[in-house]
Amino acid sequence: MTDAPETTRRGAYDKGVRRRREILDRAIEVFAERGAEGTSLRAIGEAIGVSHAALKHYFASREELLIEVYRAAEERSMTEDRPPADSTVVGFMTHAARRNHGVPGLVQLYSTLVAGALEEGHEPSRAFFGARFADLRRFLASRVEAEQKAGRIRPDIAPEAAAALIIAASDGLQTQWLLDPRVNIETSLELLESLLST
Amino acid sequence: MTDAPETTRRGAYDKGVRRRREILDRAIEVFAERGAEGTSLRAIGEAIGVSHAALKHYFASREELLIEVYRAAEERSMTEDRPPADSTVVGFMTHAARRNHGVPGLVQLYSTLVAGALEEGHEPSRAFFGARFADLRRFLASRVEAEQKAGRIRPDIAPEAAAALIIAASDGLQTQWLLDPRVNIETSLELLESLLST
Repeated sequence: MTDAPETTRRGAYDKGVRRRREILDRAIEVFAERGAEGTSLRAIGEAIGVSHAALKHYFASREELLIEVYRAAEERSMTEDRPPADSTVVGFMTHAARRNHGVPGLVQLYSTLVAGALEEGHEPSRAFFGARFADLRRFLASRVEAEQKAGRIRPDIAPEAAAALIIAASDGLQTQWLLDPRVNIETSLELLESLLST
Repeated sequence: MTDAPETTRRGAYDKGVRRRREILDRAIEVFAERGAEGTSLRAIGEAIGVSHAALKHYFASREELLIEVYRAAEERSMTEDRPPADSTVVGFMTHAARRNHGVPGLVQLYSTLVAGALEEGHEPSRAFFGARFADLRRFLASRVEAEQKAGRIRPDIAPEAAAALIIAASDGLQTQWLLDPRVNIETSLELLESLLST
């Protein structure tokens, strides 16, 4: 990036943020179709038409790029296709699962990153998914409590245990569905919802 | 392997099976400790003290070796630590999850192989885990039906939907636990069990 006279530091910063955003937007399209399999940083650059040097300028590693692609894709789909405000706690996850149906590459990317996070030497993924799961458990546990107060979820259920169970069910069902399209994610999530209900 | 005169074809075959079994047994120990991360076929050979050529003789690829390690480890643990005959359907999965607690490397190997199976170009993993999940769903669905007949599980629950849900819950909770040991797999599985109960 050259420091042209008219470019203030602030302008250069904004341009960098925009460029990084553009790279992520293009990468999301590529990954939504075909996932992350066998993609070196160089191959990713070729697929989205960005030089390897430019990619390395914006992302410290392939792992960091993949995490940012996943984070940006999730933010985008949350903005474009928000669950209804009156969603139940399981309905919230069912909505996300239905949305994911259209982008199997991103579900693959998610499972690849999560599996990587469980292994040694993937600290960025471990930090990102550790925090993401903890946030999601807190969020869903607070929804469970709210539904218990509203008389819709059984009062004898521990909100934290239910939150972990709902996330696990949603993740695990998506894995089974990707391996066998006859697995019906929504039917099993609706079963869980009815079991939790008063 | 040389064809010594006293070695019949059958004897050579048996010797090959034994040798393959020995390699898998040693590989299980290595993977139980540290998972499959960053292990080329060559590095695996070094870790278990087997030449690269010998490994390639017995296993077509790294992926095939890893699948066979996982299969052998699961068979071994099913033999050594069988769930009680009167286990409930969820109890069966809780028993497996408790057993897995002691071998985080094998849980990592499982998640790595499953994540790989979801991507293009991993046909052996896809075939193995597609069949494994389908078998497990059938097995658990038949247990759900048996428990319904015995009056222990609610009669209004679809056995197939429950089976997929129980497997998903068990897999997803193990992932969350590996990222955060505060997640209590057994508490959430016991919750699911109580929800399914009459």
